[in-house]
Amino acid sequence: MLRVEAALAGAEADLGLIENEAAQRIADVCRDLSVDWDSLAAGLARDGVVVPDLVRQLRAAVGERYAQAVHLGATSQDIVDTGLALRLKDLAALLLDRLDAVIGALAELRRRDGAVPLIARTRMQRARPFTAGAKLATWIAPLEHYHAALRDLMPRLLVIQFGGPIGTREDLRGQGDAVADAMASRLMLGSTPPWHAQRDRIGTFASWLSLVSGTLGKIGQDIVLMTQNEVDEIRLGSSGGGSSSIPHKSNPVQAEMLVTLARFNAGLLGLLHQALVHENERSGSAWTLEWLVLPQMAISTAASLRKACALLGGSVRFVASSPDFQRPSEQRLKD
Amino acid sequence: MLRVEAALAGAEADLGLIENEAAQRIADVCRDLSVDWDSLAAGLARDGVVVPDLVRQLRAAVGERYAQAVHLGATSQDIVDTGLALRLKDLAALLLDRLDAVIGALAELRRRDGAVPLIARTRMQRARPFTAGAKLATWIAPLEHYHAALRDLMPRLLVIQFGGPIGTREDLRGQGDAVADAMASRLMLGSTPPWHAQRDRIGTFASWLSLVSGTLGKIGQDIVLMTQNEVDEIRLGSSGGGSSSIPHKSNPVQAEMLVTLARFNAGLLGLLHQALVHENERSGSAWTLEWLVLPQMAISTAASLRKACALLGGSVRFVASSPDFQRPSEQRLKD
Amino acid sequence: MLRVEAALAGAEADLGLIENEAAQRIADVCRDLSVDWDSLAAGLARDGVVVPDLVRQLRAAVGERYAQAVHLGATSQDIVDTGLALRLKDLAALLLDRLDAVIGALAELRRRDGAVPLIARTRMQRARPFTAGAKLATWIAPLEHYHAALRDLMPRLLVIQFGGPIGTREDLRGQGDAVADAMASRLMLGSTPPWHAQRDRIGTFASWLSLVSGTLGKIGQDIVLMTQNEVDEIRLGSSGGGSSSIPHKSNPVQAEMLVTLARFNAGLLGLLHQALVHENERSGSAWTLEWLVLPQMAISTAASLRKACALLGGSVRFVASSPDFQRPSEQRLKD
Amino acid sequence: MLRVEAALAGAEADLGLIENEAAQRIADVCRDLSVDWDSLAAGLARDGVVVPDLVRQLRAAVGERYAQAVHLGATSQDIVDTGLALRLKDLAALLLDRLDAVIGALAELRRRDGAVPLIARTRMQRARPFTAGAKLATWIAPLEHYHAALRDLMPRLLVIQFGGPIGTREDLRGQGDAVADAMASRLMLGSTPPWHAQRDRIGTFASWLSLVSGTLGKIGQDIVLMTQNEVDEIRLGSSGGGSSSIPHKSNPVQAEMLVTLARFNAGLLGLLHQALVHENERSGSAWTLEWLVLPQMAISTAASLRKACALLGGSVRFVASSPDFQRPSEQRLKD
Repeated sequence: MLRVEAALAGAEADLGLIENEAAQRIADVCRDLSVDWDSLAAGLARDGVVVPDLVRQLRAAVGERYAQAVHLGATSQDIVDTGLALRLKDLAALLLDRLDAVIGALAELRRRDGAVPLIARTRMQRARPFTAGAKLATWIAPLEHYHAALRDLMPRLLVIQFGGPIGTREDLRGQGDAVADAMASRLMLGSTPPWHAQRDRIGTFASWLSLVSGTLGKIGQDIVLMTQNEVDEIRLGSSGGGSSSIPHKSNPVQAEMLVTLARFNAGLLGLLHQALVHENERSGSAWTLEWLVLPQMAISTAASLRKACALLGGSVRFVASSPDFQRPSEQRLKD
Repeated sequence: MLRVEAALAGAEADLGLIENEAAQRIADVCRDLSVDWDSLAAGLARDGVVVPDLVRQLRAAVGERYAQAVHLGATSQDIVDTGLALRLKDLAALLLDRLDAVIGALAELRRRDGAVPLIARTRMQRARPFTAGAKLATWIAPLEHYHAALRDLMPRLLVIQFGGPIGTREDLRGQGDAVADAMASRLMLGSTPPWHAQRDRIGTFASWLSLVSGTLGKIGQDIVLMTQNEVDEIRLGSSGGGSSSIPHKSNPVQAEMLVTLARFNAGLLGLLHQALVHENERSGSAWTLEWLVLPQMAISTAASLRKACALLGGSVRFVASSPDFQRPSEQRLKD
Repeated sequence: MLRVEAALAGAEADLGLIENEAAQRIADVCRDLSVDWDSLAAGLARDGVVVPDLVRQLRAAVGERYAQAVHLGATSQDIVDTGLALRLKDLAALLLDRLDAVIGALAELRRRDGAVPLIARTRMQRARPFTAGAKLATWIAPLEHYHAALRDLMPRLLVIQFGGPIGTREDLRGQGDAVADAMASRLMLGSTPPWHAQRDRIGTFASWLSLVSGTLGKIGQDIVLMTQNEVDEIRLGSSGGGSSSIPHKSNPVQAEMLVTLARFNAGLLGLLHQALVHENERSGSAWTLEWLVLPQMAISTAASLRKACALLGGSVRFVASSPDFQRPSEQRLKD
Repeated sequence: MLRVEAALAGAEADLGLIENEAAQRIADVCRDLSVDWDSLAAGLARDGVVVPDLVRQLRAAVGERYAQAVHLGATSQDIVDTGLALRLKDLAALLLDRLDAVIGALAELRRRDGAVPLIARTRMQRARPFTAGAKLATWIAPLEHYHAALRDLMPRLLVIQFGGPIGTREDLRGQGDAVADAMASRLMLGSTPPWHAQRDRIGTFASWLSLVSGTLGKIGQDIVLMTQNEVDEIRLGSSGGGSSSIPHKSNPVQAEMLVTLARFNAGLLGLLHQALVHENERSGSAWTLEWLVLPQMAISTAASLRKACALLGGSVRFVASSPDFQRPSEQRLKD
């Protein structure tokens, strides 16, 4: 948020709306502000958003001369949502890296174990023989798609929000759009019209997060089923979890967690989309609901990718299915 | 599903896997089959999917000579999921049309009422004056994006599913991929590797459905708030609902329904993503969960668009806000 | 709803608010009304609730003389919610019966198969030997609790709603409470103050519905896992579902459906509780959301009980686990 | 969890299963254990539950002589779930206190402002005049019911879980039930058969949490609507939130948060009920899902009560509705 305030002041100085010295002073303060956290917490509880108190602290630190140049033409939501975009940019890079790592681990598994004969199972019953390679292909394909899909999504997601009190970019001598562009450029985010009450970007990204953890949950569920003692088509090496009462038990804990995080994120997605009903020019209740849900979804997907990488990149080993399985009956081809 | 079976047989005849006469006979029967619905219902209850009994009926109608050419190399899920894609293709066209109509109605409203002075409201309190045109712009923008987004999504969504019992396209003398391509071509759907246990296409489309109804819910909520007697910034003409106890009451029923459908779809989206945890090569329980949820989401979004069109395309009229509103205080610009 | 209108008129006649002849005429018409369904549908779409048009039809059928005695002092919600209570009363009886049947089937299973040795499984791994009887005890206990819990819930759930336009029982010469009591007595429902905007009864009952289907889903999941070919601790007799591509496959379809319905209801419960935010003296959008969700939950739980009864009351047979399972290691007791 | 281990050892000493000195030593260590938190975190990540490493630390601290008396006959879930019950007992007391405080604040409001004339609003439109007292009665009634309902729920909720590895209370020379009773008595919790895989207690309590926050959300929504500038039926005194861009704006932040927390909890309830599908004798994934959801629900409801108390117990003031409202038309009573 401090980076956003500094970029805003810089943009406004570029356009002659505030003095260069003001922007410089604001940038310096934003870099080094010694935040009064108790005051910030009290402000958040009182105002429902942290920005009013943060701006008050900023103005006090900047000093009387340039105080009014702080936060000029902006509203709380501009700072919070643009700050969110900055964090989502870092998050997207991390998620892409972890996706790459999971895909790489799966490709390596396919290279090593792809020829292992397994039984395909449909509706929880043995169906027909196939190979670990065929199974792994179905795990990899959606993850590769998600990698591309996030790259497609990023230009629309990683944008500034700048609209001022009601989203009309007033109070800036008609230069609101130019301020927005300059601010976006300084923050290396995209520029776009205000979207403060249009939350589809958040809803779309949340859906992507749930799709990723959902696919990892499917992989985790498969692994849990395949590590059952009697099935024994996957062994977990050293990564099984221990029990407090049954020595030598090896639980597929990491794979279970992938299922848990998939279900958690799926439900949270349903909650996040409730926040699309964002009344009028700013909804306190819907916006706050996003705050309660989106970070958890981001963490869950990132954790799910990390756990999947650890699980798939080391301890998983495919084991040939028991051969005493009836061969499929033949359907009749022409002659 | 009958169209899918006919296209499959046609594709297989093209590739010499079954006789042309068999494909012709199957196509004829698929066109005119007199379905035994009771048997179909019993089969669905017994098998958990309607296809086994449908194939049995088809084979009986086709006659002994070509019976084994029916459904060759396919499994139930191929027929159900490809049949779904055919219906989604019609649905997508309908949704695009209705989106066009809603966007058109909003554009016409903007043309007619755009200059009406309103008060922007943030956190349910009056903030500053703006115009109906500024408000309408925030309603239109996400809808225009959804139109483009669905067109982007369609090539990936409107594809066949063809994999056979376990998704490996066996039993077809190595020509499984060619059968898939030919079948896709006949059905005017895209061709793609089997995705029977990768449900991200469904999850992505469901998210789109919820985004659309969510934005319409936001519009509905705004209208409900603006038609409050004391606020009186929107009047509904003849479309208000009547009361059984208070004559002359005019309730914003259509706008309320937009909110209801938005919340309904948001929750259903959370449920649909639970079905991403699709175990092994086919999950009876996760797949059936999709059947319970996706049709309702499709209907809800389609209904929401229809209601929005009726509401916005006729009865909504913007009314100038009461002028006794304190002008915004000024922030200080440079000099 | 017609029963409710008749009971209301009867109650008002008892208290001298309308003539006995009026109540008699209304009761006769309510018994035999030839409903104009198209008009009802149009009324529902227009008014957001079916009652205004129903009352219009009723008044027309009753005739001018007594028309004003129809629906006296009531509002649409009184009729809809009390009508709901009448249906919930029938539903509760059906649910209790089906619960009894499921508990009976489980008790019979325990009697017959209770001594079958099984392996308990924790975190999807073999843990220690126990018996089918020990497992069945954990299936039965919550169902017995639900039976008692629904009986406890019924007096609060199966009550009239009567409040008039805004829930104050006006327009009845101070006899609103007496009308409510008389109406409740005629309908054999409990009497209670108006609860039109207090939806905790619905939310509590919905939770009960989800608990029941959730426990049945747990049982279904256990059965699905135990019928896996390699585990083979449960066999399903004739009730397995067939496949369109793999002859002789027997899928645990009924058990899978228990899982599906459990997950469906769980998500719907989350949606129904969204409707607790019921603004002011009647929320069109929250109330309608209940209509979209509660019937599906009732049907899902009732279907789940029916399927569980069919599955457990006939085809399920426990089979001894393979004996080649390491005995539990011993923890040391004193001396 | 340390209290549970100490009570378990005490109970086992009471019954002669371990030596009194062992129980005394364990109790002493549990009181003062200097936990190695890093090891605990690593254990949690590895084992999926914190108990195995905690027991390992306990045994090391207790010393070799009595090490095997630690955790005797118990499993991880016994410790976690009984520990949960202890915390829920404190939580229940806190929730009852806060409910009392909210009900008290509402009663005081009714005493002070009950006669203030308001307009009842149905479907977001003015309906008829009533009083603040009539409105407050509808806010208070469900909260009073929740108070009684939680007291009814407590005996079933606040119980130990004790079953050992698979819930059969083995390894204790046939004295498992006696150990359970003694342990319950020492912890002042109820005694009950093992419920490790029967999660209805959690699901029922979660529903209660959502009902409470849902009703508070309804109250919050009403307040938000009534504090709209044009409606002005409630004023908030000093508790309105400030804006960073519009001086003198007073936002109904606390009331908005009640709506947010209601919607959050409703969605989380839907997630928690997904965890009812708890496979076999212990589900790692379903159990962990509870851990992700239940604490947030508890915190949300507790926070919602605290915020409601602050809002209702001080700053809310009812203001008479504008009198220029058409009187209701009369329906005709007999003569």
